[in-house]
Amino acid sequence: MTRFNDWRDQVFDIIYKTDTKLGKAFDVLLILSILLSVFAVMLDSVERINARHGEWLYLVEWFFTILFSIEYIVRVCVNPRPLKYIFSFYGLVDLLSVIPTYISLFIPGTNEFLVIRIVRVLRIFRVLRLSHYIHQANFLLSALNSSRQKVTVFLFFVVTLATIFGSVMYVIEGPDNGFTSIPRSIYWAIVTMTTVGYGDISPHTAIGQAIASVVMILGYSIIAVPTGIFTAELASKIQREGITTVSCLSCKKTDHLVGANYCHSCGTKL
Amino acid sequence: MTRFNDWRDQVFDIIYKTDTKLGKAFDVLLILSILLSVFAVMLDSVERINARHGEWLYLVEWFFTILFSIEYIVRVCVNPRPLKYIFSFYGLVDLLSVIPTYISLFIPGTNEFLVIRIVRVLRIFRVLRLSHYIHQANFLLSALNSSRQKVTVFLFFVVTLATIFGSVMYVIEGPDNGFTSIPRSIYWAIVTMTTVGYGDISPHTAIGQAIASVVMILGYSIIAVPTGIFTAELASKIQREGITTVSCLSCKKTDHLVGANYCHSCGTKL
Amino acid sequence: MTRFNDWRDQVFDIIYKTDTKLGKAFDVLLILSILLSVFAVMLDSVERINARHGEWLYLVEWFFTILFSIEYIVRVCVNPRPLKYIFSFYGLVDLLSVIPTYISLFIPGTNEFLVIRIVRVLRIFRVLRLSHYIHQANFLLSALNSSRQKVTVFLFFVVTLATIFGSVMYVIEGPDNGFTSIPRSIYWAIVTMTTVGYGDISPHTAIGQAIASVVMILGYSIIAVPTGIFTAELASKIQREGITTVSCLSCKKTDHLVGANYCHSCGTKL
Amino acid sequence: MTRFNDWRDQVFDIIYKTDTKLGKAFDVLLILSILLSVFAVMLDSVERINARHGEWLYLVEWFFTILFSIEYIVRVCVNPRPLKYIFSFYGLVDLLSVIPTYISLFIPGTNEFLVIRIVRVLRIFRVLRLSHYIHQANFLLSALNSSRQKVTVFLFFVVTLATIFGSVMYVIEGPDNGFTSIPRSIYWAIVTMTTVGYGDISPHTAIGQAIASVVMILGYSIIAVPTGIFTAELASKIQREGITTVSCLSCKKTDHLVGANYCHSCGTKL
Repeated sequence: MTRFNDWRDQVFDIIYKTDTKLGKAFDVLLILSILLSVFAVMLDSVERINARHGEWLYLVEWFFTILFSIEYIVRVCVNPRPLKYIFSFYGLVDLLSVIPTYISLFIPGTNEFLVIRIVRVLRIFRVLRLSHYIHQANFLLSALNSSRQKVTVFLFFVVTLATIFGSVMYVIEGPDNGFTSIPRSIYWAIVTMTTVGYGDISPHTAIGQAIASVVMILGYSIIAVPTGIFTAELASKIQREGITTVSCLSCKKTDHLVGANYCHSCGTKL
Repeated sequence: MTRFNDWRDQVFDIIYKTDTKLGKAFDVLLILSILLSVFAVMLDSVERINARHGEWLYLVEWFFTILFSIEYIVRVCVNPRPLKYIFSFYGLVDLLSVIPTYISLFIPGTNEFLVIRIVRVLRIFRVLRLSHYIHQANFLLSALNSSRQKVTVFLFFVVTLATIFGSVMYVIEGPDNGFTSIPRSIYWAIVTMTTVGYGDISPHTAIGQAIASVVMILGYSIIAVPTGIFTAELASKIQREGITTVSCLSCKKTDHLVGANYCHSCGTKL
Repeated sequence: MTRFNDWRDQVFDIIYKTDTKLGKAFDVLLILSILLSVFAVMLDSVERINARHGEWLYLVEWFFTILFSIEYIVRVCVNPRPLKYIFSFYGLVDLLSVIPTYISLFIPGTNEFLVIRIVRVLRIFRVLRLSHYIHQANFLLSALNSSRQKVTVFLFFVVTLATIFGSVMYVIEGPDNGFTSIPRSIYWAIVTMTTVGYGDISPHTAIGQAIASVVMILGYSIIAVPTGIFTAELASKIQREGITTVSCLSCKKTDHLVGANYCHSCGTKL
Repeated sequence: MTRFNDWRDQVFDIIYKTDTKLGKAFDVLLILSILLSVFAVMLDSVERINARHGEWLYLVEWFFTILFSIEYIVRVCVNPRPLKYIFSFYGLVDLLSVIPTYISLFIPGTNEFLVIRIVRVLRIFRVLRLSHYIHQANFLLSALNSSRQKVTVFLFFVVTLATIFGSVMYVIEGPDNGFTSIPRSIYWAIVTMTTVGYGDISPHTAIGQAIASVVMILGYSIIAVPTGIFTAELASKIQREGITTVSCLSCKKTDHLVGANYCHSCGTKL
């Protein structure tokens, strides 16, 4: 029994961790498999390729489905808390990666249904989570997190502006010029404010073009807001690396200015 | 009489403030009602939905109109200075939210007229004004305010550039290529400089495309200006928030962290 | 004679300066005249308006031309160095603002020629140069100036990238998909990199779309470069307002850190 | 023999360096030749110009090809380590600049093949590498380099988002609305997220437009991320340049202005 547990621990280290040689090799193989299988799903959706190489892609699909199924079962078996894994984000992604193929055996599924398999691409993040890129990602996420409230206010403001301007344009341009309804006009306002500018709907009247110009210059200018928020947050984070993480011996407080001689909280000499 | 005043004060607290339990509940209900009624106005403008569910939407509209009318009357009644409220920004918004529906009874209004009801969306801001998001919004607004003059100079510069480039393109491309007038060419220049790029008007001659390229690269580069202005302003605001300008009584050093009790340089109590 | 000189000096103060009451009134009138005349030139280019109100606009045009001609002559007369004014930037703009109308009397000019009058819009800058906005404009210009070299390097880099990618797309997509020549393909590359995206030329082959995606993500990312350059320059300028302009009594050097006790150049106590 | 070596050294200085008078003259001539030859290649690709002036351009092409061939041979001869040069980046670019013209003599090449000559434009960078612009370019590159990891994480995130959103839109919009395959839908997602917005593919269903709006606002907002990363990196670089980390010998204070002779805190000579 101990021998079995030993073996289970070893497999756990290989597929869940990355600090052993085998663990790294497994990660590389996993990333390759994921990329190849995602690539196969993509190619399969191209009609011309599907018509010519459909059978090959069918085989490739089943190869990866079985591979990932085995991986899933092993992951469940070697995990000391299997239920926690199954209902975790990555556990559900792992399941969604293989289920559609099996279901398509019983219910002749349409292409649309099989697209769910594209979530496989998210599995790469699990591997990356273990790499040294995670430090950078966390740094960015923490900056995004501290600017969350400001960004929410900004987004709410943008959506309100789009609603108002969209409604105004619905009245001015009217259904004849493509602004057939308020939701569609709001869609136009978002396309314009974000400077995407498809051109599928565009103002035709002089006054409509004047208002559109205002919307564009507004959108062009207020992009400064999310950029400014995030940049300022990031800059202050980078600078705060100029605020040390030395902790005071007496009150345990951290975050002292570089070069500080005394704790700013209790006055003890650092 | 006192009892009536008491009751009036209580209602005032509920609908104008947010610190009581009932006040919060009222705010949540109000936001929901606003969102639902705005959503109904939007759906009503979609021809297909209007044709099929028009009668339901008509009832929904009247339900919210009467609800908001009652709210408006109560707001006027319980406010100690009713006139000030009526002619305030939110007072006018509240009135504009319900008036169009009543008028449509007497004058069979077109859809265009009823769109005014979309201003209801602005009523949400009143509720948000009371929440903790207001601090973030004020922070952003104060940063925008201090960069107002710089942004005005920038916008004036952009509009002048658009006028000059628009006129140049009007001469070069001419009416045959869609640049039918100077205002329309200026509209093109704004569409291009703000990188929106609908494509409803685009240069066809070689020299026109060369000048358009210059306009694009210009627009692509000078977006740096509003972004730079706002970011620098925001960064200096955030920095000023994290480090006080309190100076130590004994060594006269300033720049202590917010919340510091002792000077980080000499250890004296601040 | 002295009386004439006195009179001349007064007129000079009114039209060249802004610190007297009359000077301010003159500026406001001038800006209004410029805006109205520019507006008239614009309207004149709209065919429908020209057909209906052409004669009125013709009168308006001559009214402003004569007004600006008188202003020009007065400016030359009261200026102590008339030649310097005539060949200055604003002197030439003033001349170009009126000349086309006179020439159109002798040579029945096309609309295209008369468009030159739009340079009148530049005359507004002269008035603004005198206002308090000029401080903000100078601040921005000085930040732009110190980032000039970096921006030049960046623009050269962008143009080279556009040349390479444009040529690659010319080979891959070919004339059949709209990429009819290298210059046109470079135009496409600029349209794409600057995220304008007219859609008048867009890739049709799979490999072309893949390369276009790379160009887009590149353009989307490197917009960070001019923005970053300008923002960093501006932020350091704003911060340097944290570097005082106190000058040392002994060596006359300025630019000491806020809170410095001794001159960083000669060691004298500040 | 020594005389020959002397001569070789002098030629080496002229064509590889820039600090002699002749060296500078050579550089200017080289840049002019490169620009002219690149311009000729571009014009040659325009069908109408090719039809009319094709023979002239053919002569111009051979003139520059022979010129660059001589330059290439001289570069190989005078370089003390010819093999290292030949297989260096610029050596290969130099070769690719002339080879296609020679090959076209034997194999009547298509236009597509001759486009390779456009790599000549890269030769300009060699000359610029020697100029004072190189300092600015290095500054930018070093800032880009230190933000490399963060930008990689960001790009990976963008591509994943594009994959997910592209697949979702493939299911929702389907082949009838232009989303014919997953790769094409991902192409659409990239066009939208980068705010390019060609409009060659755009959503037609209501739910598709709603999701597209989310993608646009997302793309509009997350442009803040690369900009923020680069700006923060650049700002900290510029700041580090203006304030040294030299510490005062007597009071141990750091952060003196570049070029400071005396400590700003205690007045001791640095």
